[in-house]
Amino acid sequence: MKDSPLTIGIDFGGTTVKIAVVFQSHIIDQAPPIATQEYAGHGELIEAMVRVVEELRTRHPNIAAIGVGMPGFVNFEKGLVYNLTNVRDWESVPLKTILQEKIGLPVVVDNDANCMAFAEWKCGSGRGFQHVVFITLGTGVGGAIIANGQMIRGARHGAGEVGQTSIDYQGRAGHYGNRGALEKYVGNSEITAAAHEAYVAAGIQKSLEDCAPAALAAAAYHGDPIALAQWESVGRMLATSVMNCCWLLNPEAIVIGGGVARAGELLFKPFKEHLFVQLSAPFKDHLMLLPAAFGHEAGIIGAAALARELI
Amino acid sequence: MKDSPLTIGIDFGGTTVKIAVVFQSHIIDQAPPIATQEYAGHGELIEAMVRVVEELRTRHPNIAAIGVGMPGFVNFEKGLVYNLTNVRDWESVPLKTILQEKIGLPVVVDNDANCMAFAEWKCGSGRGFQHVVFITLGTGVGGAIIANGQMIRGARHGAGEVGQTSIDYQGRAGHYGNRGALEKYVGNSEITAAAHEAYVAAGIQKSLEDCAPAALAAAAYHGDPIALAQWESVGRMLATSVMNCCWLLNPEAIVIGGGVARAGELLFKPFKEHLFVQLSAPFKDHLMLLPAAFGHEAGIIGAAALARELI
Repeated sequence: MKDSPLTIGIDFGGTTVKIAVVFQSHIIDQAPPIATQEYAGHGELIEAMVRVVEELRTRHPNIAAIGVGMPGFVNFEKGLVYNLTNVRDWESVPLKTILQEKIGLPVVVDNDANCMAFAEWKCGSGRGFQHVVFITLGTGVGGAIIANGQMIRGARHGAGEVGQTSIDYQGRAGHYGNRGALEKYVGNSEITAAAHEAYVAAGIQKSLEDCAPAALAAAAYHGDPIALAQWESVGRMLATSVMNCCWLLNPEAIVIGGGVARAGELLFKPFKEHLFVQLSAPFKDHLMLLPAAFGHEAGIIGAAALARELI
Repeated sequence: MKDSPLTIGIDFGGTTVKIAVVFQSHIIDQAPPIATQEYAGHGELIEAMVRVVEELRTRHPNIAAIGVGMPGFVNFEKGLVYNLTNVRDWESVPLKTILQEKIGLPVVVDNDANCMAFAEWKCGSGRGFQHVVFITLGTGVGGAIIANGQMIRGARHGAGEVGQTSIDYQGRAGHYGNRGALEKYVGNSEITAAAHEAYVAAGIQKSLEDCAPAALAAAAYHGDPIALAQWESVGRMLATSVMNCCWLLNPEAIVIGGGVARAGELLFKPFKEHLFVQLSAPFKDHLMLLPAAFGHEAGIIGAAALARELI
């Protein structure tokens, strides 16, 4: 079984839990998603996850291991979920132990951003590099760090929280009282709110929906100056946190994923410009700025790859 | 010879080059310093360094290796000095190769902040930790990172430049065009200038000398409210960059050295307060904030320890 090339990846999100069978970096079978919020407690939700896994195993009996990506703080070594940002009743849940007992397969549990980074590092845009900073831009801003050819997890498995780093010591308070947290400037709803404010200031009526990143990107593609200025601003603020990562870690590559990154060159162009004028030669000459190779499926593929690697 | 416990450590500074024989973490013999600026080019200065090394070797014939800490960008693997911030005629100097040929001993060349960090990590305040961020506060602000029990040097040996990281994306331009560079706020002369400005604004005449960090610390100890407010401000700004290091690397310890750190609790108290209110539990519960164990001699001891470790 350990030699089977098949693993199951679980991408546990605030809205849905997605479970799939992965062969190398390809999803070959995926179960219908579980609606996260329909379950009152972690016990019931785990039971539902186990049922789906067992169902997939009837079709693929040779699963070698299971990897789970969780949206919150995880003790990777113990497979213990400390807490989740947007899901209730997930305090100190020994998820790895519970799943291993119920399923009888090796289980690996990690932070979702680490899983996505692992997918990119092992099979995606970050392949072959020894020093990579990975950033995911969405509702929240997550990240992960690879240095010396290893995932850097830190003392309590918390490393890589790019979204919590500050771009302004006197700025907006983040979720943890951290002034100027990047996430409070370039998170999904913060981009939306800033764009809405800019339109209102210009006397233009727009719904919040029309100010969300996807709509804002569409408007910018059509030359809307307010939308263009918003992406310029997002690029500049993102560049500050990435620049800090570069001075600290001198990476070979920055890999950027998540929904907001789908704005493409609208974001990448100002981001690159602001980044490169703020770095000296040994920090930028070789530096690759890369969009993530995987989209929605990064979490599943990364969790599955992590399981594959660690058994 | 390789088994001899004696190594020579060289601390190459903008003012003097200090050369000493080190046994474990103790300096057992030190030559008179070389005045850096008295030498027009790197060739002559290297000759002077070689003469001092040979003189020390007549008294200590069993030197196993030599370590050199340089104030600038160094290719650690090749022992190549790319350039030095404050010393002319040091562009692309293959220092390791030159010294090895002239002296006939193994030579290791690294960035000075890395050497100081190595001293602290191997024999000082950072001993026993797997994840440490080291910061030195002086004319410039330097740093080094240990993660997963390894020194993190990055793709081009540049990692650890805490002083170049930004605390304000719209802030003062640093040496490399980097907006809000920490060094531009808490470097020696920036602390002096800010204090001078604060005294002038309060209608108090002070010389720049009386506003320098040592004098400012003395004034604060005696209750001077302007001096106290300056240290509060320095602590707050330093806390922002350290907080960023914590979110990114989740270290076990922060070790702070350099002249400015001699302000002690005047700096450490506000620094700690601002840091801890901006971190969540897994980032702060275990976190140790430690003053460096070594003072002026950190560079020599670290360079010697690095030589000891790598031969």
